[in-house]
Amino acid sequence: MRRVHNFNAGPAALPLAVLEQAQAELLDFHGSGMSILEMSHRSKAFDKVIGEAEQNLRELLNIPSSYKVLFQQGGASLQFAMVPLNLRPAGASADYLVNGAWGRAAFKDAQKQGKARLAGSSEATNYDRTPEQVDYDPQAAYLHFTSNETIHGVQFQQEPQPPAGVPLVCDMSSDILSRPIEVARYGLIYAGAQKNAGPAGVTLVIVNEELLARTPKDLPVMLDYRLQAEAGSMHNTPPVFAVYIVGLVLKWLKAEGGLKAMAQRNQEKATLIYRVIDQSGGFYRGHAMPKERSLMNVTFRLPSEELEATFARQAEAADLVGLKGHRSVGGIRASLYNALPVEAAQALAEFMREFQRRQG
Amino acid sequence: MRRVHNFNAGPAALPLAVLEQAQAELLDFHGSGMSILEMSHRSKAFDKVIGEAEQNLRELLNIPSSYKVLFQQGGASLQFAMVPLNLRPAGASADYLVNGAWGRAAFKDAQKQGKARLAGSSEATNYDRTPEQVDYDPQAAYLHFTSNETIHGVQFQQEPQPPAGVPLVCDMSSDILSRPIEVARYGLIYAGAQKNAGPAGVTLVIVNEELLARTPKDLPVMLDYRLQAEAGSMHNTPPVFAVYIVGLVLKWLKAEGGLKAMAQRNQEKATLIYRVIDQSGGFYRGHAMPKERSLMNVTFRLPSEELEATFARQAEAADLVGLKGHRSVGGIRASLYNALPVEAAQALAEFMREFQRRQG
Repeated sequence: MRRVHNFNAGPAALPLAVLEQAQAELLDFHGSGMSILEMSHRSKAFDKVIGEAEQNLRELLNIPSSYKVLFQQGGASLQFAMVPLNLRPAGASADYLVNGAWGRAAFKDAQKQGKARLAGSSEATNYDRTPEQVDYDPQAAYLHFTSNETIHGVQFQQEPQPPAGVPLVCDMSSDILSRPIEVARYGLIYAGAQKNAGPAGVTLVIVNEELLARTPKDLPVMLDYRLQAEAGSMHNTPPVFAVYIVGLVLKWLKAEGGLKAMAQRNQEKATLIYRVIDQSGGFYRGHAMPKERSLMNVTFRLPSEELEATFARQAEAADLVGLKGHRSVGGIRASLYNALPVEAAQALAEFMREFQRRQG
Repeated sequence: MRRVHNFNAGPAALPLAVLEQAQAELLDFHGSGMSILEMSHRSKAFDKVIGEAEQNLRELLNIPSSYKVLFQQGGASLQFAMVPLNLRPAGASADYLVNGAWGRAAFKDAQKQGKARLAGSSEATNYDRTPEQVDYDPQAAYLHFTSNETIHGVQFQQEPQPPAGVPLVCDMSSDILSRPIEVARYGLIYAGAQKNAGPAGVTLVIVNEELLARTPKDLPVMLDYRLQAEAGSMHNTPPVFAVYIVGLVLKWLKAEGGLKAMAQRNQEKATLIYRVIDQSGGFYRGHAMPKERSLMNVTFRLPSEELEATFARQAEAADLVGLKGHRSVGGIRASLYNALPVEAAQALAEFMREFQRRQG
């Protein structure tokens, strides 16, 4: 069986052990005589799948019991709408920190149905860092930020510190489960699963129960956090297969040593690539300011767009795939999520050195 | 390998050939060296997957080119919100026909953010038929109905006829692709895939382009049909795996002879069960009025709840699974979607006769 080194930004590499298990039991789930794809979401078997997934997520992230865990659909982008619809009372304003394309999209959606305010932005430096000048509204309904900007490759090293009483809301799509965090610092965390946690099609939401009291009474059922929490994410049919794969990934994470081990491994992988950039004498130029470089998405440029195209093409020929930068930024992006083996990062670092050497 | 007869109401049976293909290529999709679960939604390979799925859906349903096809998330339940948000202008009212639990849920959500009106209901007879007395608003933004009520087992034999100029909107979750329809009669059709079209996690939306002009400008991105159509369902990451399985199911449907062949087979399966009910001398009592019996979900009662429990238990022991009726209705429900083989319906009919005989 052929396996390439998969640097896709999301959907992204999954652990081989997870794929092998899913394949082995795809026709007959645990002796049930049917596929997990054919199984009722009201069955005892699926109750166990979703219950274990929640339990393992709680263990890995050390989620306090006063937080609800939801499995939603629609990606982080639907959360761009649900967060203000649920957490911003009529007339109130919400604060947004923007340091990349995803934060900007969240801010834009929040402006549509009420008041949203830019508390800080790094647009002036093309999102190469988190906002340096911030101006927080002490009355804000919440402060929203994006912990890791997938496209620009910038990652918060620590949570921003909003004024007392302002809950922190975080789009953690591209770095959830990549390092330990203290959930109690957050009011709400959401994350599309398709980078560090599983396949596309399911979104994790972790929310402080207290905030559920804010949900207004007239929201449509599928946009209402409180109803979704009351129904255990099963008001309607959840994305069964995606939840199942997330469950397998979480078991794998535990078996690999949990989030501390993951953080160490992610640091190791990122260091391999950043070191080549820093030792290249300017041939490779990192986009993000060194102190806020992302461990998940390493973004860099080469001396010309032609060379970037050649780099991506030759890398692909060497089974290093998914390295072309996002169309809105260009250059090269190597995504190094949890499931990417250290050997893949080693292979890329070696390829980068060799590529530079060949350019003389 | 063990395969049971799967009468689940959804998620439900999938064609064995589809599962086998998904299993065979789960670790390496078409020689790419990665799983379809790990593949970028912006890749050429996935472009082909989603493009072929749309093309085959268009062929099977003979969808006019003036209609857009969308692959959405959130199930039919999110459409309960999106339909009025997009298609009901401020101040306008929408008409709803309600003949079961799903139509009622759609009506309830539509009442939350604007005006919705009950154009007809069969609640008085516990949803055993479609509404007999209807009162249409000629000014309605649209008329919504549910072509097949999964829980009550009632199916429209023909579309309702709204006043001229009122577009027909249909929740077709549980009978899409089970029989030929004339799409041009509809303004918008939506369907959760997890009954006749694939796994849970993707919703098909077929919409007349003309209606997209109604979408107001301030909708959040993920709730905006027009933006979703412009982005070819890829404004954000679509549920890649669910779309892929739908694509395999559509290929299977074509290979099996398309919707005319499906309708014939579905008629044959349903007739096998309804005949046992009608010949049981009242031992089995169908819930739906005979002229509007669903070909997809056969709902019936036995002389007592104890006997119903015994029936479901003994059936399961005989590898006939998923027959317990929905918790809100009770009794027995046999779902006979496209992928359920005729042999499964034969086995159930035989079991029903035998069970009655044993009660003496």
